[in-house]
Formats: sequence, structure tokens, C-alpha cells
Amino acid sequence: MSQLKGACIIGQSGGPTSVINASAYGAIKTALESDCITKVLGARHGIKGVLEDDLIDMGKEDPQELEMMNYTPSSALGSCRYKLKDPDEDDTDYKRILEIFKKYNVRYFFYNGGNDSMDTCNKISKFMLKNGYECRVMGIPKTIDNDLAGTDHCPGFSSAAKYIATSIMEVYCDAHVYDTGMITIIECMGRHAGWLTAAAALAGVKGCGPDLIYLPEVDFDLDDFTKKVKAIYEQNKNCIVAVSEGAIAKGGEMQLKDGEVDAFGHVKLGGVGDWVADEIKKRTGSETRAIVLGHLQRGGTPTAFDRVLATRLGLEAAAAVSDGDFGKMMALQGTDIVRIPIHEGTDVLKVVPVERYRDAEVFFGA
Amino acid sequence: MSQLKGACIIGQSGGPTSVINASAYGAIKTALESDCITKVLGARHGIKGVLEDDLIDMGKEDPQELEMMNYTPSSALGSCRYKLKDPDEDDTDYKRILEIFKKYNVRYFFYNGGNDSMDTCNKISKFMLKNGYECRVMGIPKTIDNDLAGTDHCPGFSSAAKYIATSIMEVYCDAHVYDTGMITIIECMGRHAGWLTAAAALAGVKGCGPDLIYLPEVDFDLDDFTKKVKAIYEQNKNCIVAVSEGAIAKGGEMQLKDGEVDAFGHVKLGGVGDWVADEIKKRTGSETRAIVLGHLQRGGTPTAFDRVLATRLGLEAAAAVSDGDFGKMMALQGTDIVRIPIHEGTDVLKVVPVERYRDAEVFFGA
Repeated sequence: MSQLKGACIIGQSGGPTSVINASAYGAIKTALESDCITKVLGARHGIKGVLEDDLIDMGKEDPQELEMMNYTPSSALGSCRYKLKDPDEDDTDYKRILEIFKKYNVRYFFYNGGNDSMDTCNKISKFMLKNGYECRVMGIPKTIDNDLAGTDHCPGFSSAAKYIATSIMEVYCDAHVYDTGMITIIECMGRHAGWLTAAAALAGVKGCGPDLIYLPEVDFDLDDFTKKVKAIYEQNKNCIVAVSEGAIAKGGEMQLKDGEVDAFGHVKLGGVGDWVADEIKKRTGSETRAIVLGHLQRGGTPTAFDRVLATRLGLEAAAAVSDGDFGKMMALQGTDIVRIPIHEGTDVLKVVPVERYRDAEVFFGA
Repeated sequence: MSQLKGACIIGQSGGPTSVINASAYGAIKTALESDCITKVLGARHGIKGVLEDDLIDMGKEDPQELEMMNYTPSSALGSCRYKLKDPDEDDTDYKRILEIFKKYNVRYFFYNGGNDSMDTCNKISKFMLKNGYECRVMGIPKTIDNDLAGTDHCPGFSSAAKYIATSIMEVYCDAHVYDTGMITIIECMGRHAGWLTAAAALAGVKGCGPDLIYLPEVDFDLDDFTKKVKAIYEQNKNCIVAVSEGAIAKGGEMQLKDGEVDAFGHVKLGGVGDWVADEIKKRTGSETRAIVLGHLQRGGTPTAFDRVLATRLGLEAAAAVSDGDFGKMMALQGTDIVRIPIHEGTDVLKVVPVERYRDAEVFFGA
């Protein structure tokens, strides 16, 4: 395939993670050294930076600052939650993107994010192809939720999982100090996929794990939940429950936060921990507290493995340009970084298989 | 002074910290090697373990387990929140303690905790003296609140302070990712003393500090608070506020949690973060979220400095027995561990001096 020379744009999208900057670093560093790439542009606040022509010339940034990016949590270029419309219904945004791509002779577009961001990648890639503008779009996965398919796991996940497991160990020790009894409900992130909340079980390796784990994959029965908590509490004078923010009680008694939705139409979650704790307190009369791990789950020190994985994914995305590859998402399979068609990453949401619940040593409250 | 031979009891009390076990380790290790001490007993759940004759012979514990205590957060012996009555009104508990002390020939009592625990120490010391039973009581300070006087600072504080500063850096990075604007209210521990919440300012060293800090020492004016938040938000599209769990709005509009009180008659706090966030959201219309750092503040990895300090304080308390000293609290002054009369630690609650507010670079919302 002939070598295509031009500028590249890199953008970050969706919620920040501990390692999304490591991916950006990998992509930028490699792009800066690439023979095909004439200029490396960073889009401020993801696709919004492209639409608003708000781009940073990464070649003019302090190289030392760039090196630091590899070790800095959160999204250094800024992020967004902006949903591109279906181009068949409204192609205004796509035309604008094409205009900007032409203005800077952008031939490479790297987008770093989760499911919605991969969807954005896919739409742009198709639009450019359809309109005869040669631009090679590559998706660099990122999501603490670990719900992108085709990759063994997603960068950002293992750091968040370690934070959750470590925090639960700490909460376990804290909750077992008094002899007066305590029920603790720990709310972990995870809207549709329970991987992160399931990571709470890792605390059990040190004997400090939760007694019950509730994931979003299976609606839970509050009466049964209460019965199980009561039985554990009666035996141990203590019960620790990890519950996913996306876990739903059968019958849907939980009040969602003002029914608010985000730009992607996702209902704003939050509150299941407090709600469950209130219900359990009412139903058992025992001292019950809720701990919401919140945004700290995604913002802290990465695991070395996670950071290196993220850097590799970014690096490989930029390295792929010399092969003329496009429309691909970088993925980890075994120890290799491979390229899969973007839609393979997003067609099916990778959730925790229900059959694993039954095998689990820590009971998953299905 | 003649050498007094007998058993010792060590107990932990109050909220757990990252390093209370390091103090226990220091005291137990030294006591086990002491010529004066014939047996080292650990009281399960603090003074309750003494009252209930629930004692562990530490000499029979696995030495390796003991070594691990030095590096394990939370209270390994168990804790309590049990308030001894004024002995002039009801001396039942004191008589029972004396009975247990006589039963095991306990001549040394080390109690490891915060203000209430030092108060317990003081009362027991006086009762034993009055009743002609020679028992040397020593207080080993511990409190993340840092509100004991006579010591430069209290073990447990610096680890919690580091956790708060680090978490705020992470929250800062997370909150600045979108260009859509965000007000973040972070609730930190601290009932009467603002030291911990003031530690939020340390995040500012890396340029990721809070815009406003509200401490319990000075009641805040919600109208003025709102005005300041609005001004900062208008300029930066972002505002981060650290607020102490004990901070009180003028006029006391905040609803306390069901008016619940603990064993010491302290009102159960919690909720100021959510309450302030709700008020600010109503009054500004901007997206506002509350983050409650909660018990994770006191349960995590200690700073090396904090751990070594805690071990030294425990060690020195046990070492002091050969000098025949008693009725003292161990304290850090400069680089030295000194012994001060217990009441000097507790007579006055060490709070953040109001005049420091004015000098502070980060505005303390007084």
C-alpha cells in the first residue's frame, strides 16, 4: 500500500482513567517519530476540539511534559461526552470534521475511549470512506468498565480493580474493629458490566473480601438480599456487600437521580449504595453504612501492567499507519497487541457471564 | 525507684488508623523484652476486654504475626467506644478493672487512643493511686484528627493527611477533564479540629488544590459561601471545595443524621458534603457533586514517617516502665519523644488557630 503523508489528530473521550494518558503518550510519541505523519495535533476535549478547531500542535510541546503524560492519571487533552448523530439523519458534524481534516491535511485520526468513542471512530471512518477522503481512523480502547469485546481486557480496568480490592481490604479491617456489629454496603462503578464490582472478590485472597457481591448483569431480589445479609450478620456480627452502581432491584424500586440522562441518553446512576443501606437498616435494624467509592476508582496510581498495556496500545495504533491499516481497534490477545475491526469491539457489550456466578467462591447475589 | 514486677495490659481504643498497630507493636515488643514485665496481655476491644476479662497472652502469639502488626492498618486487638463514668458518681467499672488488675497482677497499663482514651487513662491512673494499688498507666496517643495537645502532631494524622491531599489531586484532575463545568464538594474527616481538612491545601503544591476550604473552627455563612463558589466558577468553570465533616453553617440549617449520638455523647456527623452540594446546586444551577472520603481516610497505607513515629511512641511507653514513670502521655516534641502529664494532652483541644486562616494562601472560608 502506498504511503499516505499527512497530519494526525489524537483525541481522548469519555471518563478519565489512570492510564488514558499513557495511551495518548504512546500514540503521540510514535506519531512524532513517524515518516508518514507530518504533524501531530491534539484535540482539546475530544471530538469537540475537532468540531471547534481547537487543536494543539504536540510537536511544539515540551518533550519533558510529554514524558510526564505517561505517568499522569486523567485525560491531559481534556475529554467530552459528545454523541455524533447518525450520519444518515444529520451529517452536519461529519461535514465539519471533513472540513477540518482537509484544512490541516489530516490523514490519521486516533481516538482513545470506551464503547461510545469506538462508535464515534467507526462512524467517522465510514463517512470518510464514503466521501472519498482518505483518512485512517484507529481506535485505542480505554474503559475501567472492561466491557469492550475482542480484547482480553481494557486498559484502565486493572488499576481500578486494584483500587477497589485494596479499598475493600481497608474497609474490611476498619469494619471489624468494634464488637458492636456493622453492615457495610460498598458501591463500586459499573453501569452494565460487573467486572469492576466483581474485582471486589480479589480482596478475599487476603481474607478481607466481601460477603456478598451484586452485579448489574442479574437483577437482585431485595427480600432475598436482606435474608442473606441477616444470616451472615447473625453468624459474624458483620457483613460486607459490594454492589455495582448499575445493580437493579427486581421491580425497580430504586429512585434514579432525578431521572437525569447524559449526552448519550444513559441514565445518570449513583445512589444504589445509599438506597440499599437505608433499606437494609430499616429491614434489619442493624447499624449499616454505605461507602461510595466514586471517581477515586478511576483517578489513582495505575498498576505497572496497566500503564505498560495502555502505552503499548497507543504506540501500536500509531505504528499501524505505516502498514496502511485503518478502521481498527487495538486489542490485547494473550500477550500480543492485535488489530480488530472496530465494530467487533462494540457490537456486543462484554458483560460478566452469568454461569460464572455459580462457580464463584464469593457468592454473587444473583 | 524500686523496680515493680508484674503483668502489663495493652489496649487500643477509638477509631482505627493506619498506624495504631505500629504503636501496639512497639509497646508489645518492648514489653516482651522488659525485665519488669512478667506477662504481656492484649485487651480485646480496649477497656471492654479488661471489664469482660477478655485478654490475649501476647507472648504466646506467633512472633511473625507480631512483626506484621507493625505494617498493618486498623486496630488488630479490636477497639471500642466505651465511656467510663465519673468514678465519684459510679465506680463499678473501676472496681472491676482493679479486680482484673489484681487477678493477673497487672502493674502496667498502656492505652492507645485519642482524647477520650487519654481521658480513660487519666481516670484509671487516679483511681488506682487513690485505692493504693500500684499500677503505672501510660497513654500512647493516636488520632487522625491531630487534636491532642502537647505533641507536635499525632500518629495517624500524616497518613490520613497524605491520603486526603493525594485524593484531592486525583479529584482535581478528574474534575477538570470536561469543559462543561463542575463544582465538587469534598467532605473530609474532622469533627472539631480542621487539621485534616486543612491538609487538602497540600494538593495545591502540585497545582491541584481546592479553591476553598471550610473548617469546623469557624461557622460558615452559606450565602457568602455560595457567592465565593459562584465567583470562582464564573472565572474557571470549575470549583473544588474541601469541607470538614464538622463544619457548621451559621444558623445551623444542616440536618444532622437522625440526631444520633455515640457512646461519648458526640453527635454522629456525616452528611455536610451532600447537604452543601445540594444547596450549592439549588443556588447556582451548576452541576455539583459531593465526594465523601469517609473511612478510607484512616485505613490505608501509612507514610513511613507516621509508622516510625507510632512505633517509637509505643516503644517509649513500654521503655518508660523501668524509670518508674506513670500517668504520662507519650508525645513528639521536635525530634524527641517526651512524656507529658496525660491531662496536658487533653485539657485543651488543639484546633487550627483562627489567625492562620488569614495568612493561608488557599482561602479558608472563615
